[in-house]
Amino acid sequence: MYPESLKNLIESFKLFPGIGEKTAERMAFSSLALEEEQLAFFAESLKQIKIKLHPCEQCNTLTDEKLCLVCSNPTRDKNTLCVVEDSKIVFLFEKLGTFKGKYHVLKGLISPLEGINPEDIGLEQLLDRIKKENFKEIILAFKPSIEGETTTLYIKKILEETGIEITRLANGVPIGADMEYIDALTLERALFDRRKVE
Amino acid sequence: MYPESLKNLIESFKLFPGIGEKTAERMAFSSLALEEEQLAFFAESLKQIKIKLHPCEQCNTLTDEKLCLVCSNPTRDKNTLCVVEDSKIVFLFEKLGTFKGKYHVLKGLISPLEGINPEDIGLEQLLDRIKKENFKEIILAFKPSIEGETTTLYIKKILEETGIEITRLANGVPIGADMEYIDALTLERALFDRRKVE
Repeated sequence: MYPESLKNLIESFKLFPGIGEKTAERMAFSSLALEEEQLAFFAESLKQIKIKLHPCEQCNTLTDEKLCLVCSNPTRDKNTLCVVEDSKIVFLFEKLGTFKGKYHVLKGLISPLEGINPEDIGLEQLLDRIKKENFKEIILAFKPSIEGETTTLYIKKILEETGIEITRLANGVPIGADMEYIDALTLERALFDRRKVE
Repeated sequence: MYPESLKNLIESFKLFPGIGEKTAERMAFSSLALEEEQLAFFAESLKQIKIKLHPCEQCNTLTDEKLCLVCSNPTRDKNTLCVVEDSKIVFLFEKLGTFKGKYHVLKGLISPLEGINPEDIGLEQLLDRIKKENFKEIILAFKPSIEGETTTLYIKKILEETGIEITRLANGVPIGADMEYIDALTLERALFDRRKVE
């Protein structure tokens, strides 16, 4: 029913998670309103992403260079390492701008249910790095889930001997939330992670 | 903060209406999970859209060919013409599949407020076509708005002499709607457009 060229574009948008038929159609029609240069820029960006983007040699954060912006920045705090499950989280933290240490990106989290074992998530590279660099604190910034907890406990265990301080993000009540809508587990964690008022 | 290649892709997605920073970021990251051929296909589709797609010579519906699928189909009912404001509406009707007549796509609707006058929406081409072809009924399928009404009344007036039956879509209660949430104007129209139960 759609002309071939329009159909191809709709199908392309549908490749994205969360983009259904309707949204894909709307986006394809919106493309028609774009300038030719904008479409060319978009097309080029799509191709470049696979060519240019790759994991940083040191920390695995996605980068166009040999080393990512954090690893190549000599002013970053060399004492603190923040371990995350995905590059996305690095960009999230960097947007925040409050964390001044270094990062290390794993290849996901341990998930026995999905058959993802400790040897699958790139822990060896992390341990190599910890041996070489001189971190005083390692923050395990994983999502609050079974996989996150499992990975946290596993890393905590294998680093026990090193004497490095291993921390995790606080779990608790999100800012702006209505107390009555907080689920029981989160409230339990907020109570457990409570801090002295100073 | 983002690598150049990723930033370019995020900026590209942000060109679309309704796509903000967060969604653009999520879509850019999703692109990373696509195969190289999928990205190439997407990129090619974006470029092709400006090259291949153009209005049908006869009815202005977007097409890759000289004539659109409807105009080039000899089995369509030549007595009924459905006039719409945009190609999108043609595709909407064609998806439905119940309308068997022909279409004509205007260049929008008359809108004195936005400075869009009758001579701006391609009415001459429509009148030419009506003169040449032998329509018995012309359905004005515009959106229920001031612009839609204005355009409907204007076309009705200039076609008065022809004796062709001019109809419009029914306004009324949408299927599945809760009666108490229907706005007053819609209810008024539903009453006005009421039909005999047969």
